[in-house]
Amino acid sequence: MPQDVSNLIERRRELLGPNLPTFYDEPVHLVKGEGVWLWDADGKKYLDCYNNVPHVGHCHPAVVEAIARQAATLNTHTRYLHETILEYVERLTGHFGEGLSTAIMTCTGSEANDIALRMAQAATGKIGIIATDNTYHGNTWLVSQLTMGREPIGGRADFVRFVPAPDSYRPLGGESGQAFADAFTARVEQAIAELEEAGHGVACFILCPYFANEGFPDLPAGFLDKAVKAIRAAGGIVIADEVQPGFGRTGTHMWGHEKIGVEPEIVTTGKPMANGHPVGCVVSSPEILSAFHTATGYFNTFGGNPVSCAAAVATLNVLETENLMANAEDAGNYARGRMAALAQRYEAIGDIRGSGLFFGAELVKNRATKEPYAELAEKVSNAMRQEGVLLNRASIHNNTLKVRPPMPFGRAEADFLVDTLDSVLGKLTG
Amino acid sequence: MPQDVSNLIERRRELLGPNLPTFYDEPVHLVKGEGVWLWDADGKKYLDCYNNVPHVGHCHPAVVEAIARQAATLNTHTRYLHETILEYVERLTGHFGEGLSTAIMTCTGSEANDIALRMAQAATGKIGIIATDNTYHGNTWLVSQLTMGREPIGGRADFVRFVPAPDSYRPLGGESGQAFADAFTARVEQAIAELEEAGHGVACFILCPYFANEGFPDLPAGFLDKAVKAIRAAGGIVIADEVQPGFGRTGTHMWGHEKIGVEPEIVTTGKPMANGHPVGCVVSSPEILSAFHTATGYFNTFGGNPVSCAAAVATLNVLETENLMANAEDAGNYARGRMAALAQRYEAIGDIRGSGLFFGAELVKNRATKEPYAELAEKVSNAMRQEGVLLNRASIHNNTLKVRPPMPFGRAEADFLVDTLDSVLGKLTG
Repeated sequence: MPQDVSNLIERRRELLGPNLPTFYDEPVHLVKGEGVWLWDADGKKYLDCYNNVPHVGHCHPAVVEAIARQAATLNTHTRYLHETILEYVERLTGHFGEGLSTAIMTCTGSEANDIALRMAQAATGKIGIIATDNTYHGNTWLVSQLTMGREPIGGRADFVRFVPAPDSYRPLGGESGQAFADAFTARVEQAIAELEEAGHGVACFILCPYFANEGFPDLPAGFLDKAVKAIRAAGGIVIADEVQPGFGRTGTHMWGHEKIGVEPEIVTTGKPMANGHPVGCVVSSPEILSAFHTATGYFNTFGGNPVSCAAAVATLNVLETENLMANAEDAGNYARGRMAALAQRYEAIGDIRGSGLFFGAELVKNRATKEPYAELAEKVSNAMRQEGVLLNRASIHNNTLKVRPPMPFGRAEADFLVDTLDSVLGKLTG
Repeated sequence: MPQDVSNLIERRRELLGPNLPTFYDEPVHLVKGEGVWLWDADGKKYLDCYNNVPHVGHCHPAVVEAIARQAATLNTHTRYLHETILEYVERLTGHFGEGLSTAIMTCTGSEANDIALRMAQAATGKIGIIATDNTYHGNTWLVSQLTMGREPIGGRADFVRFVPAPDSYRPLGGESGQAFADAFTARVEQAIAELEEAGHGVACFILCPYFANEGFPDLPAGFLDKAVKAIRAAGGIVIADEVQPGFGRTGTHMWGHEKIGVEPEIVTTGKPMANGHPVGCVVSSPEILSAFHTATGYFNTFGGNPVSCAAAVATLNVLETENLMANAEDAGNYARGRMAALAQRYEAIGDIRGSGLFFGAELVKNRATKEPYAELAEKVSNAMRQEGVLLNRASIHNNTLKVRPPMPFGRAEADFLVDTLDSVLGKLTG
């Protein structure tokens, strides 16, 4: 490990605490970014196949210029009037269906989800929350209640119930198609019954409509229809956490919930929306939003400040003018096609899934048993980093290579990714 | 009201919800800021006597340049190595006493307090929280539990107890000095006993060490000593929320807790630390911080990103090189001196309090009875806005004019503030 990296790790331990993880066995010391590329302190260049935050590309000049210009002009808060927050919310809600016409701007997706959950509670008069069991929606006290794998500090709130995250490679009940959807619906109905019996009722079902951290399963059309109907029959509403699939990442739709055909009452966004500037958002109807405002008097000092809104407007501009959603569809299809060819040569590739620029390969020890091969996914991820390609792993069994690059990622970059993966898999499994 | 303001208010209702308040009867439509000055869309100039977020002055060129430069170079997250977060945390913790040597960077003060409370719970193994009864620490589910005046959505957590915010103008028990401190301590001891009886134990006492929202009382030296001793005897720790008094605002000390002589185990900061860029922070010992990391695996995507850290470093640089803490002491003393002279002419000024550039005047209907005059405070605030001076009101009875300007506010600005206040009070009470 280079001396400067060892020194940084040591200072990091002292200043940020002894147990703050980095990516990779040999952490990367980044100093520069441009488009889909990153450079480390030694001048080594990396293809960024992982970071969704710099949505329209690292350091996109249009976003940088908007931030610099507004930061030099005015930065205040929403207790004064300002045009840009109105312009942004008007533009943003124009991308949603009827009813999703008002918004609260925040600084992070966690803040957005913390609001959305309470908004659902305020609007329904119930407090029960249903989430999937391998998800991650954020890091506040309330939102971290939805991270099942880790007991929250102070204990798990009684008003949360988990349902199994859909896994298309290993479907609940063993069968795919409608049987899988019915098995899932049955678990949602069970969670509803439990919450009602406990006296909490059902405020909401919160989901990432792409089940991104859970392995982005390929779900049959209408998979969630019956489950959503059951939630609504119980008086609850649906929250779509679009932090990962939103803003065109899946190539086919602006939002993950459009892709799966669900119409949520509340949508939250975060990471990609201002290309790295700290911005999140909650979108809902005037009725639901104002029920929350009335109950809380919510105010976020930094949320919706002019600089954050300028960054968000510029990001949306670039997304539209550079046709990045169409690019995501094209580059994603191309990359998955090439990965499918790799799968014919490497037994370890058990399943290739995804849409647009959010895809990956599930690694298994044996295709018949589908036994997850998490150790290999970790080795591949580290070896790719050494070869100049940054990706990582995710999913229920932590055995799925996750590719989620900035949206300007094109066919040439897909070739570099797949060729490098070919070489790495050859060395590790050949 | 000008047409453009009416239009903005109408669009705001539609896009941000029907019940989102603005400051003042006639909201201000700001378009430009520089130093301690703001301009509205009609070119009218305002002296900013209220905003603490642009700590070193609106749009300070050194901070703008740092943001623009880093945004054009690289913006990632803390799973990679980066120098600037280490540089910042090293500089920041250098301003604290021994033990407060590690930090978690967040995007808002609310996020910082949400962490700090759980950090105290993780470190002590207890969950009870004691707060003062007229405070505001932020807007997440957990932190909004500390806002006593408003029932949280879903109900008040059983592990929170409130103690009366110290009010030096109307001291608890009716006597000032040690009797007041003893009365306060007795209430803290009662809260401790209640939390222990309920089985929660005491994790922490969280306080703004300047009691900023509660009217910034003038407290006798050692006021909190016995209360803090009782908290520690019960196994709890102290969290100082430095979002308002921190970074030299009080003129005499870098931190509010130094001013009142309390050594907290955890400190949180927010608003002023990056001059408006969304940055917050939790500072603690390696032991306490790592207890939290171990329990939660906390990661904040935007927290501690290179651009946020560059903004925070630049803000700290300006604070130091422009000697703004010394300026705060000088300008604050001067302004309070002039306000004391006003108090000889206006019966409505019941008490003048504060330190450095955080001060105000409590307005009363009658100096003998000290009956709060909130309506006058509201009228003065609106009239000052019309005269080109932005301030607001706060405190337990909402009757205290609150002056908390950007730190480059000097004697000339203090003259403009006091002269305008003289004229406004003359019209409203003369």
